[in-house]
Amino acid sequence: MRERLTALGVPCPRYAPVSDLAGVTEFAARCGWPVVLKAVSGGYDGRGVWICETPDEAAEVLGHGVAVFAEEYIGFDRELAALAARSPHGQGAVYPVVQTVQRDGVCHEVLAPAPWLAVRQAREAQQLALELAAELDVTGLLAVELFELPGGRLLVNELAMRPHNSGHWTIEGATTSQFEQHLRAVLDLPLGAPGAVAPQVVMANVFGGPDPDVYGRYLHVMAADPGVKVHLYGKQVRPGRKIGHVTVAGDPALGDQLRERAGRAARYLATGED
Amino acid sequence: MRERLTALGVPCPRYAPVSDLAGVTEFAARCGWPVVLKAVSGGYDGRGVWICETPDEAAEVLGHGVAVFAEEYIGFDRELAALAARSPHGQGAVYPVVQTVQRDGVCHEVLAPAPWLAVRQAREAQQLALELAAELDVTGLLAVELFELPGGRLLVNELAMRPHNSGHWTIEGATTSQFEQHLRAVLDLPLGAPGAVAPQVVMANVFGGPDPDVYGRYLHVMAADPGVKVHLYGKQVRPGRKIGHVTVAGDPALGDQLRERAGRAARYLATGED
Repeated sequence: MRERLTALGVPCPRYAPVSDLAGVTEFAARCGWPVVLKAVSGGYDGRGVWICETPDEAAEVLGHGVAVFAEEYIGFDRELAALAARSPHGQGAVYPVVQTVQRDGVCHEVLAPAPWLAVRQAREAQQLALELAAELDVTGLLAVELFELPGGRLLVNELAMRPHNSGHWTIEGATTSQFEQHLRAVLDLPLGAPGAVAPQVVMANVFGGPDPDVYGRYLHVMAADPGVKVHLYGKQVRPGRKIGHVTVAGDPALGDQLRERAGRAARYLATGED
Repeated sequence: MRERLTALGVPCPRYAPVSDLAGVTEFAARCGWPVVLKAVSGGYDGRGVWICETPDEAAEVLGHGVAVFAEEYIGFDRELAALAARSPHGQGAVYPVVQTVQRDGVCHEVLAPAPWLAVRQAREAQQLALELAAELDVTGLLAVELFELPGGRLLVNELAMRPHNSGHWTIEGATTSQFEQHLRAVLDLPLGAPGAVAPQVVMANVFGGPDPDVYGRYLHVMAADPGVKVHLYGKQVRPGRKIGHVTVAGDPALGDQLRERAGRAARYLATGED
């Protein structure tokens, strides 16, 4: 991915293949510590990513025997995501740019649209997603995860060629959900309108907590906030595992506390704590 | 239905059981011509309803041998519908009141919310739907079809105890669709928020036209207006039969021509005429 992005001239963090500690320290001499080591394959939700402050920490990661590459550590302001769809006959559509709120490399919340994002940056991110979808000959959805740097510059962090967690808000929050859009694209049907249906939409992931019996908490959330849309995936509940998400759409100008409502519902579903 | 509504003191057209022409003319002497004759059972979408201007026309209907009753003809301004949900433990929820646009007794369009409906009338209709659902011990959805008379008085025309054509707009247009709401009610789960997600929502029914091959026209509509949501029911296409509906949600303050867009898509799907 990094090779293709670099070849396409897409702004992304500096990186280098490394096979041993000498390679890592050479990379650090150019880009500074910390150095991010990433597994070449199989990384997901922060797994396969190690931020190494020192050569000793890098040596420990290399000792795992996992094939990694080195990447420049980016001191970003926040993370954004741009979601585009592309059909085989070349039609493209792009959703409003969102902010993803991550903890320990795992997405916890998505705010749509990204608050206070300049129109110029939003367009840049959307254009980038559409261009990447075309350059990489994507059929279906492409999620582009971005770092926003102090000063507003955007760097590509990750690509995901599928309906994506950062697009779950579209199920209720956009005229065409990312899943409908993916099907339209794969079937080479005309793409649907990607615009939001409400001024603001907040998606919060639901994680497994200590008590695996979600159902009683689900009933409580339905009764406590009848405007929250709850999605549970039917996965086995394990602590920290994504088992669902909630979405709230509305208008903050009318006093709607969307982020608080989504966070409260997601937290209650996970832990039973209000 | 008329007997229960009358017993409950709900405002509805005057009516009387009739078994012969003498009964009809006696009713007409009280309520005037035309007289509406309605089949006691099996009526649907304008079928089983005859508006008789004269005794001769009434005699012809009676000659069909269908059991009918006589009903006062109402010169209404427009038709409204109020949709309520009720669960076994007694929770109620009611959707915004809509205007239904009928031709020949068949619903063609639904405008949500009903344009320029006074708050007082909207509340009266919503209260009526909730009270009827409770009085009739409804589990699930109850649609109350209403006549709005000149001056604003509301009369109950029909009841339907199920998800209803006048509520299809809720699939995309409300926080909780009527189908989700019906399931919540039947399962005795907490009901969902019934509010609209957009300032205006228009639903237009799609009728079968001369050419039963809808698919090509469907592709055209998807491409021509990517914000229209098309629902086709997979029914055999016969001229005049309801085979689907389209929904458009948006904000007329932003210049969105919702009714024109919905009507155009529905017409094109039926006939291929733009």
